[in-house]
Amino acid sequence: MVRIAIVGYGNLGKACEKIACTQDGFQLVGIFTRREPSSMKSPFGTAFYKQSDIENFKGKIDVLALCTGSANDLTDLGMRCAASFNTVDSFDTHARMRDYVTEMQRITTENGNLSFIGIGWDPGLFSLMRAVFGGVLPDGVSQTFWGRGVSQGHSEAVRRIEGVVKGIQYTVPKQEALDAARSGKGAELTTRDKHLRECFVVAAEGADKAEIERKIVTMPNYFDEYDTVVHFITEEEFDRDHGAMPHGGFVLRSGEVNGAHHSLEFALKLESNPDFTASVLMAYAKANARLFAKGVRGAMTILDIPAIALTDEDRTDYIAHTL
Amino acid sequence: MVRIAIVGYGNLGKACEKIACTQDGFQLVGIFTRREPSSMKSPFGTAFYKQSDIENFKGKIDVLALCTGSANDLTDLGMRCAASFNTVDSFDTHARMRDYVTEMQRITTENGNLSFIGIGWDPGLFSLMRAVFGGVLPDGVSQTFWGRGVSQGHSEAVRRIEGVVKGIQYTVPKQEALDAARSGKGAELTTRDKHLRECFVVAAEGADKAEIERKIVTMPNYFDEYDTVVHFITEEEFDRDHGAMPHGGFVLRSGEVNGAHHSLEFALKLESNPDFTASVLMAYAKANARLFAKGVRGAMTILDIPAIALTDEDRTDYIAHTL
Repeated sequence: MVRIAIVGYGNLGKACEKIACTQDGFQLVGIFTRREPSSMKSPFGTAFYKQSDIENFKGKIDVLALCTGSANDLTDLGMRCAASFNTVDSFDTHARMRDYVTEMQRITTENGNLSFIGIGWDPGLFSLMRAVFGGVLPDGVSQTFWGRGVSQGHSEAVRRIEGVVKGIQYTVPKQEALDAARSGKGAELTTRDKHLRECFVVAAEGADKAEIERKIVTMPNYFDEYDTVVHFITEEEFDRDHGAMPHGGFVLRSGEVNGAHHSLEFALKLESNPDFTASVLMAYAKANARLFAKGVRGAMTILDIPAIALTDEDRTDYIAHTL
Repeated sequence: MVRIAIVGYGNLGKACEKIACTQDGFQLVGIFTRREPSSMKSPFGTAFYKQSDIENFKGKIDVLALCTGSANDLTDLGMRCAASFNTVDSFDTHARMRDYVTEMQRITTENGNLSFIGIGWDPGLFSLMRAVFGGVLPDGVSQTFWGRGVSQGHSEAVRRIEGVVKGIQYTVPKQEALDAARSGKGAELTTRDKHLRECFVVAAEGADKAEIERKIVTMPNYFDEYDTVVHFITEEEFDRDHGAMPHGGFVLRSGEVNGAHHSLEFALKLESNPDFTASVLMAYAKANARLFAKGVRGAMTILDIPAIALTDEDRTDYIAHTL
C-alpha cells in the first residue's frame, strides 16, 4: 500500500483522488488545499487539510502527488515539498524545466527524498518516446503532433472576449502534415503548419458574431499565427457536445539505417485528458515508492525511470511474460 | 568511442558491422566467427577472428554484440561471453527467457560484467511498450500484432517442400482484427485470428502446384491453424519483388480510467528487419558502455534500462530539450 496525499483539488487532483479510492494499492491520506478545508466536499469522504499544514504530515505520507494549476504554484510547491516528502508532478513548462530539475535535484539530494518531475503524457510518455525513438534511430527526424484535444489556455482566451457566453478551443492535427511526417517528409513544418485551431462559441444574444470571430482569429500569440476556424453554436449544442476534455496526439520518427527506411509511431487517444494524466501520475507514484524503498534518491524524469519500476510483480516473472 | 566486437556474421552481424563502420562513436575491434577467418571477406576490411579465441581479447573490447542465429547457440555463447565481457544480444525465445536471464544475472554478477538481453524490437521496443502501456493504464487490454513482414522460419518451411524452387512467407495482420483491437474489442482474439500467412512460391517446372499448396496450408505447427494464402509466381517476379526483409507491427492498449476510455498505440514499419534490429542493438551497446562506466553490473533487459542511457549528452541539457 502506498500512503498517498494530493495537493490541489482541480480536475487533476480530483482524478487522482478517484484513482486512489478505486484502484488497489493506495491509501489516501488526504487532500491539501489553499481553500478552507471545512468548505470542501469529496464524493469519497476524503479528509481535507490546509496546504500550509503539510509539513506536519512528514513521515505519514509515502508520496505526494502535486496537482496544483499554474507553473509558478507548482515549482514553488515542488521545491517546498521535496524537502520533506517524495513527490510526483506533471510540471509542463518547457522553458523552465532545466531550472526546476536542477533545483529539485539539489533539494531531494540534500534531504534524502525522491521526486519525479514532468510525469504525464507530454511531458511524460511523449518524452519517453522521443528519447527512445531518437536513440534507436539516430539518423532520422522526430515530429510531435497534438490533438484533437481541448487547449485550456486557448479556451480561456476565447471566453475572455466580450459577447462570448461559452467557448472551447480544440487543437487539431492537419491530416496532410501527419501524412507527410509519416512518410518521412515535412521535417521543416512548424507547429503552426501542423495544427489547426477549431473554436466552438456560444454568443450572447445580440452580440456581433463577425466581431467575435475577428477578435479570435487575430488574437496575438494565441491565434494570429494559426489557421483558426470559429463555429457559433447554441448553448444546448455546447452543453451536449463539448463537456468532455478529450486529447491525444502523435510522436513520429522516420529515418534510415544502412540505407533502409524505418518509421516509428506512438499514438494516444484520450477521452479525458485529466483522467489519463492522473493515471500516469499515480502509476509513477507507485513506482516512486518502489524505487525509494530500494534506496533511490534524487530528482528523476520519465527518461531516468526504468519501465520495470511500474510493476509490483517479481522481476523475473514480469520479464518472462512481458519481454 | 565504444570498442565493439561482433560474434556471428549473418544478416544481423553484417548490419551491426555496417553501423559500427559508418556511424560515429564505434571502434570495431573485429568479427568472431566459427568459420575459417581467412576465408571471410568484409566490404569494410574488418578483421575476422576464430570464435574460440575470443577470451584472448578480454580487456580489449568494451561491448560484444552477440549476433549468432539459433537460440541454443545464443544462450551458450551469451553465458560463455558474459564471464569475460559486457554483452548485448537480441535473444528472442520467449519460453527460455526466464532461465537465460536468471543464469546471465548470476554470471555477470560473479564476474563484474553488464549484459543486455533481448534487445531488438520484439523482444525489445515492443516489450517496453507493453510494460509502459500496462503500467499507466492498468485497467485495460494489450494486444500485439506482427507484420506485414517476412518470417524466416516459415519461409524455410515452405522451401523444404518438394518442387519449391524459391519461397517466402509474410505474416500479415488482419485489418478487421486490428480495427477491433483499436476500438478496445477483440480481447479474446488469438494470434491465429489476428494474422494471415501469405506465401509466394516459385515452383519447379512440371511440379504439381496443387500438391505444393496443399502441403503448405496443412503443415502442422506452421500453417494448419492459420488462414494461409499461396501465390505462385515466376522466378523473375520473385527476384524483383521479394528480395527485402520488411517487417513491423503494432502494440495496442485500450482501457479505462475513472470511466473514460483511452487508447495507446505503437506502430513500427521497417524496410529491413535486420538493419533496424541492428540499430536498436548498437544503440543499446553504447548505453551498455555508458552504464558500465557508471558502475552498473548485472543482466538487464530493455525494461530495466532508463531511456536516458541512450544519449551521450549532458543529462540536464538532454532533459531540457527532450522532456
